Amino acid sequence: MKPRVVIVGAGFGGLTCARSLIDGGATDVTVVDRHPYQLFAPLLYQVATGGLPEDDIAYPVRAAIPGLKFVRGEVVNVNPERHSLRLADGTVIEWEYLVLAMGSVGATFGIPGVAEHALQMKDISQARAIKNRLLSTYEQVEMGHKPKEALRVVVVGGGPTGVEVTGAVAELQKQMVREFPDLAPLAHVTLVEAGPRLLPSFSEKSSARAKKALEALGADVRVSAAVDRMYATDVHLTSGEVLPAGTIIWGAGVAAPEQWTSLGMSDRANRLIVDDRLHLTPDVWVIGDMAHVTGPEDRPLPMVASVAMQQGRYVAASIGAALSGGEVAPFRYKDKGQMATIGRRLAVVEMPNGMRLHGTPAWLAWLALHVFYLAGGRNRVSVIADWFWNYLAWGTGPRRTVLE
Amino acid sequence: MKPRVVIVGAGFGGLTCARSLIDGGATDVTVVDRHPYQLFAPLLYQVATGGLPEDDIAYPVRAAIPGLKFVRGEVVNVNPERHSLRLADGTVIEWEYLVLAMGSVGATFGIPGVAEHALQMKDISQARAIKNRLLSTYEQVEMGHKPKEALRVVVVGGGPTGVEVTGAVAELQKQMVREFPDLAPLAHVTLVEAGPRLLPSFSEKSSARAKKALEALGADVRVSAAVDRMYATDVHLTSGEVLPAGTIIWGAGVAAPEQWTSLGMSDRANRLIVDDRLHLTPDVWVIGDMAHVTGPEDRPLPMVASVAMQQGRYVAASIGAALSGGEVAPFRYKDKGQMATIGRRLAVVEMPNGMRLHGTPAWLAWLALHVFYLAGGRNRVSVIADWFWNYLAWGTGPRRTVLE
Repeated sequence: MKPRVVIVGAGFGGLTCARSLIDGGATDVTVVDRHPYQLFAPLLYQVATGGLPEDDIAYPVRAAIPGLKFVRGEVVNVNPERHSLRLADGTVIEWEYLVLAMGSVGATFGIPGVAEHALQMKDISQARAIKNRLLSTYEQVEMGHKPKEALRVVVVGGGPTGVEVTGAVAELQKQMVREFPDLAPLAHVTLVEAGPRLLPSFSEKSSARAKKALEALGADVRVSAAVDRMYATDVHLTSGEVLPAGTIIWGAGVAAPEQWTSLGMSDRANRLIVDDRLHLTPDVWVIGDMAHVTGPEDRPLPMVASVAMQQGRYVAASIGAALSGGEVAPFRYKDKGQMATIGRRLAVVEMPNGMRLHGTPAWLAWLALHVFYLAGGRNRVSVIADWFWNYLAWGTGPRRTVLE
Repeated sequence: MKPRVVIVGAGFGGLTCARSLIDGGATDVTVVDRHPYQLFAPLLYQVATGGLPEDDIAYPVRAAIPGLKFVRGEVVNVNPERHSLRLADGTVIEWEYLVLAMGSVGATFGIPGVAEHALQMKDISQARAIKNRLLSTYEQVEMGHKPKEALRVVVVGGGPTGVEVTGAVAELQKQMVREFPDLAPLAHVTLVEAGPRLLPSFSEKSSARAKKALEALGADVRVSAAVDRMYATDVHLTSGEVLPAGTIIWGAGVAAPEQWTSLGMSDRANRLIVDDRLHLTPDVWVIGDMAHVTGPEDRPLPMVASVAMQQGRYVAASIGAALSGGEVAPFRYKDKGQMATIGRRLAVVEMPNGMRLHGTPAWLAWLALHVFYLAGGRNRVSVIADWFWNYLAWGTGPRRTVLE
């Protein structure tokens, strides 16, 4: 098999690149991924807290981009010299142009116990594991199989992921009063952030608002609190304090998969360092969370969807130029602002023009943007219906159930 | 633990009984089930064919009936003399009154190969297995891991379950053209029924309508065609004909779990034979699919939800009477009619007063009834949104994806 363009990874970067290429008239584009669906990762925390069915945040790649070729498989080797790659099942795929967009995995920063005890939230099965743990703990405590402390949840990391999942866990814990009236009041969530404030990439005002909003939901927020190590049932801070926890959720950071660092120079987060046109070699591009690209103030661009999507479009144009013998200008990231939601009807939004939203207007902006980018009309309708219901039934509707 | 009333099984019968008891003022009612949710089994075929997310047809038992005690566990032993039962984890539960409502499992009728190769559709994990098989087969054929014949589906059993799943598979196969334009035309579904017509409990006119409607959807319908044996890749009929199949779905019948036949007299479907007041012993009642109760013309009542629900309400009244020293009249089943849906916007409905609906009016009646009985406003909203979308996107919207 020798397609002209091969894109590894069906995330925001890879699929944006594929769509741009096909919209531009390319006829021989192949995407390779382990999963046959595009995952809408920004809503994984909703699946992890029983707010949305898994199905709503996954969309079949083949249906998303008609005309695309899709190969399901795990890439185990990339050989830029031979212009080939190999899948776990032995299939060899050759290419003229290659785009690497494998994304990132949860980083542990070498903290003892994280790999064994913290639950990551990077794919559907991990989100499902968090949901099952959160929900089944109530039952296990009720049956005497676990102590009451198991109802305590610790979230590590005060970035958007940690803030969003903490808010959703706090709301889940309130809603469980309907199913476990005696146990629900014992449940609790603590957010631990090593730095001096939540949402460090936002303004101090937004950080303060996020903290206040989480505390209003009943969450405990600890800033300047670093994790020293963790065990199955507790998290030890460097201060010596011990936080009991039946569920530990890791939102403290991600890194590119280590296995690809051998392809070139990489940074501490295993990101491959590419040139200002995102090239690893003349025929290989790296985009998204896997790419170390320098932005304003010489800092690497953040590992977020909007960077990956802009890079995907840029590389599609770049490949188009290469085919027609043309050239493209260096990649420039256009900052689209940032947002984080905190529970129902609260969010913080910061636009690059300095405009800031908070509270319900910010939440509506967050909602609109997420529904807009969610693939597939069906999923959009379904998510809106679910949220409509959440909004109407606030405080009384139960979360989704453990499906075993 | 010694609750006053223990109900084993959180299906239509068990939960209707529990709700009636609690609505009547009972304070010590415990339901035991392996799963913490009520499964809306009439829509399992939708999950099996990627039409609805699993979450939409499951509702947490504890949230459904506030005031109810719920124990999650698998009952392995029932001792009517000692007024006790034992769970797989060793827990012993004693009771004053016991209601057995464990439902049914797929029956194989001793046909060779059914247990090994036919996919049953009685719980969430089985429906998920059918969905994953149906969807992943396209990918496996595309990658050359399976032959093209694997795209052929055989459904065994022409009752409502077989008819409904056949219609939904036929529609799924049409929709897959969006993802697999080359392979989709090779997919095919055959419905095999041993008797002379589909839907034998309906009128001949409805049977003929159902057959015509399925054929209009592209399904092949074989009546008077009995399965002799089956293998991993084909179904052999007694006529000698061999039907190749990558997926074999079993809808040919159910039976009560065999393990409980030792509790009393049972019929060929392992149903426990109870008296006209549904008693197995003075303190033990059996309801729903597990109970052999004689109806009109001396035939046992059918294994359907409306029988189980009426019996659940009856036993709740009966327990109320027992507590107050009163008596109840023998159980009488009130026929509520029957319905089956065939794909989108087609159904057959037969009321006991002789009224018959077919086509779109029947489908709307089917829809209204199913949404009405579905537990939980949230699931209702979500199912309506999904169906609304199915209806709007007919022919273009993809089905749900394999979530691995």
